[in-house]
Amino acid sequence: MSDLTTQVRAFAEERDWQQFHTPKNLAMALAGEVGELLAEFQWLTPEQASAVMEDTEAAARVRAEIGDVMIYLTRLADVLGIDLVEAALTKLDEVAVRYPVHQVKGSAAKR
Amino acid sequence: MSDLTTQVRAFAEERDWQQFHTPKNLAMALAGEVGELLAEFQWLTPEQASAVMEDTEAAARVRAEIGDVMIYLTRLADVLGIDLVEAALTKLDEVAVRYPVHQVKGSAAKR
Amino acid sequence: MSDLTTQVRAFAEERDWQQFHTPKNLAMALAGEVGELLAEFQWLTPEQASAVMEDTEAAARVRAEIGDVMIYLTRLADVLGIDLVEAALTKLDEVAVRYPVHQVKGSAAKR
Amino acid sequence: MSDLTTQVRAFAEERDWQQFHTPKNLAMALAGEVGELLAEFQWLTPEQASAVMEDTEAAARVRAEIGDVMIYLTRLADVLGIDLVEAALTKLDEVAVRYPVHQVKGSAAKR
Repeated sequence: MSDLTTQVRAFAEERDWQQFHTPKNLAMALAGEVGELLAEFQWLTPEQASAVMEDTEAAARVRAEIGDVMIYLTRLADVLGIDLVEAALTKLDEVAVRYPVHQVKGSAAKR
Repeated sequence: MSDLTTQVRAFAEERDWQQFHTPKNLAMALAGEVGELLAEFQWLTPEQASAVMEDTEAAARVRAEIGDVMIYLTRLADVLGIDLVEAALTKLDEVAVRYPVHQVKGSAAKR
Repeated sequence: MSDLTTQVRAFAEERDWQQFHTPKNLAMALAGEVGELLAEFQWLTPEQASAVMEDTEAAARVRAEIGDVMIYLTRLADVLGIDLVEAALTKLDEVAVRYPVHQVKGSAAKR
Repeated sequence: MSDLTTQVRAFAEERDWQQFHTPKNLAMALAGEVGELLAEFQWLTPEQASAVMEDTEAAARVRAEIGDVMIYLTRLADVLGIDLVEAALTKLDEVAVRYPVHQVKGSAAKR
C-alpha cells in the first residue's frame, strides 16, 4: 500500500502533474472514475452484476476501473496527508458503534 | 491492507449484510460516498481546498469521508475477488505507457 | 422551464452566490446531489426501487433529491449559456442515429 | 419540457428498453453521465472552466454531456412519475426558507 502511494506520487512528479493534482481536482477525477465504474454495472441485473467477473472482457474492464478509482483515491489521500487504511479502520470502528450487531442484523435500514 | 479487507468483511458478515453487498449496490454506495467527499470541496477556492487539512473540523470530515470511500472500495473489490493494490499497480503501468513522460510533461491534455 | 432558470438565478443573485457558482463548482455540487439520489436506491432490490414512490416518506425524499439535482443542472446550464431542453433534444437525435431501432431493440449492449 | 419527456419515452419504448430503465439503473446511468461531465472540468483552473464555452470543441463536448445528463434525469423523473420542474420549484421554495437572504448573503457556509 505504501509502495502504491510512492509509485503514484512518482508517476505524477515525473510528469510535472503536481500542479493539476489539487484536492479539488483529484476529488473530481475520483468521481469521474467512479462514474465509469458505475457504467459497467448500470444495465446489468443483480444476478448479471454478481457474475461479472466470470466474463473475461467485462472482468478486465471492471478490474481496470477499480484500479483507476484506487489510483486517484491513493493520490488524493497522499496529497491531503491522510493514511488511507488508517482512515478506513478508524471509520469502521465508528460505524461499528453506530450500528450495533443486535440492532441492525439483516436490516438494510441504513446499509 | 489485507487486514482492512478482513475487518470490513467481518463487519458485513456479523450484520448479515452480505445480501445487500452485491457489486451493483456497492458501486452505488461508493458513488454516494464520493458525492459526500465532493461536497467538502465544492464551494472552496483551489487555495482553500489545498489548505483544508489545516482546519481541524474540516480535516476530520474529509478524513471520515475518505475512510467511507475506502471502506466501500475495499468491500467492492473483496466481493469481486479483485486485489485493490494489484489492480492499481497494473493500471498505473498501463497509463505510464500511454502517457510517456517526454510527451505529456507539464501538460493537462489528458490529466 | 425558463421560469425555473430565472428563479434559480434570482435565488443565487439575491444571496450574492454568483461568486461560488462557477461551472467547476456547480458540476461538483450536481455530482454531490446525484450521490444523495443514489443513496435512496442503493440498498433496494430492483422491485423495491421500482415501488419507491408508493412509500410516502421515501417518495418525498426522492422527489426532494430529484429537485436538488434539477436545480443544480438548471443553474449550471444557465451559467454556461446552454439551453437544457435543446441540448437534450439535440443529443437525443444523435443517439437515435447511433442506436438504430432495428439493431438494438431489446438489447442492453449499450443502454 | 413535456415534449422532451415524451420524446425520451418514445426513444426508450421504440427500442424496448423499458426493461432496463428501472429507477435504480437510471440513477446509476445519471451518475455515470455526471461523471463524464466532471471529467470536462477536472483539470481546468477556475478561470479556464469559466471560459470553457469559448473553445468550440470543449463547448460541444460540454453541451453533449449536459444533454446526456438531462436525458437521463428526464427519463428517471418520468419513470418515477415526478414532474421535474415542479420538483425543482418546490425544493427551491424550501431552500429559500432554510437560507434566508439576510443570513447567508455572500457566505459559502452552506452553498
